[in-house]
Amino acid sequence: MATGGHPVVYGDWLHATGKPTLLIYGHFDVQPADPLALWTSPPFEPAVRDGRVYARGAGDDKGNMLIPILVAEAFLATRGSLPVNLKFFFEGQEEIGSPQLAPFVAEHKALLACDLAVSADGTQYGENQPSLLVGLKGLVALQIDVQGAATDLHSGVYGGTIQNPIHALVRLLDSMRAPDGRITVAGFYDDVVPLSAEDRARIAAVPFDEAAYLAGLGVDAAFGEPGYTTLERAWARPTLEINGIWGGFQGEGVKTVLPNQTHAKITCRLVPNQTPDRIYEALAAHVAAHAPVGVRVAVTRLPGSSDPYLMPADHPANRVAADVLTELYGVPPVFVRMGGSVPVVPLFLRELGVYTLSFAFALEDEKHHAPDEFFRLASFERGQRGYGLLWERFGSAGI
Amino acid sequence: MATGGHPVVYGDWLHATGKPTLLIYGHFDVQPADPLALWTSPPFEPAVRDGRVYARGAGDDKGNMLIPILVAEAFLATRGSLPVNLKFFFEGQEEIGSPQLAPFVAEHKALLACDLAVSADGTQYGENQPSLLVGLKGLVALQIDVQGAATDLHSGVYGGTIQNPIHALVRLLDSMRAPDGRITVAGFYDDVVPLSAEDRARIAAVPFDEAAYLAGLGVDAAFGEPGYTTLERAWARPTLEINGIWGGFQGEGVKTVLPNQTHAKITCRLVPNQTPDRIYEALAAHVAAHAPVGVRVAVTRLPGSSDPYLMPADHPANRVAADVLTELYGVPPVFVRMGGSVPVVPLFLRELGVYTLSFAFALEDEKHHAPDEFFRLASFERGQRGYGLLWERFGSAGI
Repeated sequence: MATGGHPVVYGDWLHATGKPTLLIYGHFDVQPADPLALWTSPPFEPAVRDGRVYARGAGDDKGNMLIPILVAEAFLATRGSLPVNLKFFFEGQEEIGSPQLAPFVAEHKALLACDLAVSADGTQYGENQPSLLVGLKGLVALQIDVQGAATDLHSGVYGGTIQNPIHALVRLLDSMRAPDGRITVAGFYDDVVPLSAEDRARIAAVPFDEAAYLAGLGVDAAFGEPGYTTLERAWARPTLEINGIWGGFQGEGVKTVLPNQTHAKITCRLVPNQTPDRIYEALAAHVAAHAPVGVRVAVTRLPGSSDPYLMPADHPANRVAADVLTELYGVPPVFVRMGGSVPVVPLFLRELGVYTLSFAFALEDEKHHAPDEFFRLASFERGQRGYGLLWERFGSAGI
Repeated sequence: MATGGHPVVYGDWLHATGKPTLLIYGHFDVQPADPLALWTSPPFEPAVRDGRVYARGAGDDKGNMLIPILVAEAFLATRGSLPVNLKFFFEGQEEIGSPQLAPFVAEHKALLACDLAVSADGTQYGENQPSLLVGLKGLVALQIDVQGAATDLHSGVYGGTIQNPIHALVRLLDSMRAPDGRITVAGFYDDVVPLSAEDRARIAAVPFDEAAYLAGLGVDAAFGEPGYTTLERAWARPTLEINGIWGGFQGEGVKTVLPNQTHAKITCRLVPNQTPDRIYEALAAHVAAHAPVGVRVAVTRLPGSSDPYLMPADHPANRVAADVLTELYGVPPVFVRMGGSVPVVPLFLRELGVYTLSFAFALEDEKHHAPDEFFRLASFERGQRGYGLLWERFGSAGI
């Protein structure tokens, strides 16, 4: 089906009268294969070595997405029917931010109507540790531009007489964050749903080796909003990060310039019930209130908004999936969140009124987006058993 | 004479027994003529239009420097002698910071020994307002490099868990300056010689239209250290200016990156008795004391140091020059300083033990370093009368 960009693929089987309807999501596009020289075997010729299939998209998301297709084929081939109603919905622009997906979904609500979305794009927490994803952060992005004099000026002749835009920007940016990492923009935390004792217990239950985490990043200390653990900050607290800053002379040596322009880019990651609109307004108001004298400061919202997302841990679909995962792995799943944003998930909630069960079997070490991307064949097989069990349980127990 | 770079030109006439010896300084190198298309006539074919000679170097510094040469030739042609002893000392690397000049002067102290240096490189305050330059700022430059994680990271996955180097740099830079513009680096003002009542009166006597100054720069307000006028800040108070800053994503749109490196360049302009070494040490100590946790911060001194310079307004050479300028212009000179740094002037003071009388006749509106550089022929003639009078007075009254 046409979207204006790459098409989406839709297919359904809706003959399980009285049974739930699942919308199975995946994406068939992949990241570029460059740099080609770093691949052990050609990226578009899948090669199996040591129980792993190596190819671009092996895990993200072709391998993951193939699982529910094969399971549906197996049901139809062996039983002639499926235990639930299925709608397959695969897109081809996930890796570029799904620019046409929101209007497509909004215009096809009846076609896509379902009781639950199931995403075949994602990971389990570890090879022996299943997980259920219950939270995603939202996103809002902006740029700040500071303009001083009409031209760059001599720092000796004019320095000390007028505002330096870089000093002004530095002051403005520093005013947004306390030294301890707390964001000091008025209203920033107003809509945040506090973490409950259960929320914190679920996050604390997730195996996390902080020393190994920091060593892997090459830093000697964690840092962030006081009062929360590192995983709580990563998964469940809003953030404001400067993504880039530039202005004036950036070359070798010295240039005695008083620059006339400087710029910064900021993204905030949001948690329920923050919204991109309200956080952008809070930041714009902060900039207006704190803009230093002697410069003109402009704030521009950048594209890429996403709503935060939180699925109840005790949602019936999570209970069913937890039973299936426990059966597959021998241990119960942990409840995880992601600091990243997956716009399709809050999109399904907003437009279709359904939560998304993330039911996918890649692992974080499988080099998604990088050379030698791979997918464990054991995960591929476990995923097929998993989808079979999941659909049977939904068919018998409902959602 | 060879310097290792472009040579210097030396010539002397030392037959005025018992009279003072002047070292006449100028430079024969010029800035590049680009952009050529913006010149009305070719930059290296001097063209006279409306009483002005247009050419690259017309004022900076070939025209200015030609004046004392012609005056010496005139004295020798008409009288067969000069009223003072003269040493001409012209360099060819002023526009690139005179990299070989300091060692050359240090190695030729006897050759260059004199009672006073006279610089034929510079300006008068206005077409009808002569001036005597009594102060120059010094300079020290440094770079700050902040390193976070080993690589750039995903701002969603890792944001909020470790220190963002740009936030850290912003905090560090903001800690160096109070919101009102005062520098808050410990020790920064310790060695500053306070402005005396006479100093302030001399600066206040200089015609200065602040509204026109700000309008010319395109800003709506002056800004800087409280308690001083704009001219006092420009000429006689030390400054700390960020010349450049960069890190992370600087392209169009959004990149959700938590950058791992960021950088800033700073120059400070110094006043007596600050020294580049002590101010660098104060800044390095400030950075060490204020470096945020979770990042590694390095400070590197950059080339380009210069000492500040202050010549007594009542120095005998200034009294003689003031009389000559008053005779030439019909009004007495104002005493001015420069926020810029001219390393040769403190160099002569340090190595030769002499002050430098700036006695030059360009004007600020004559487009030095730019297309259509020009020099007023009236200034050229007035300068020649001026040098003749100056040498005669020094010959009769001494220094």
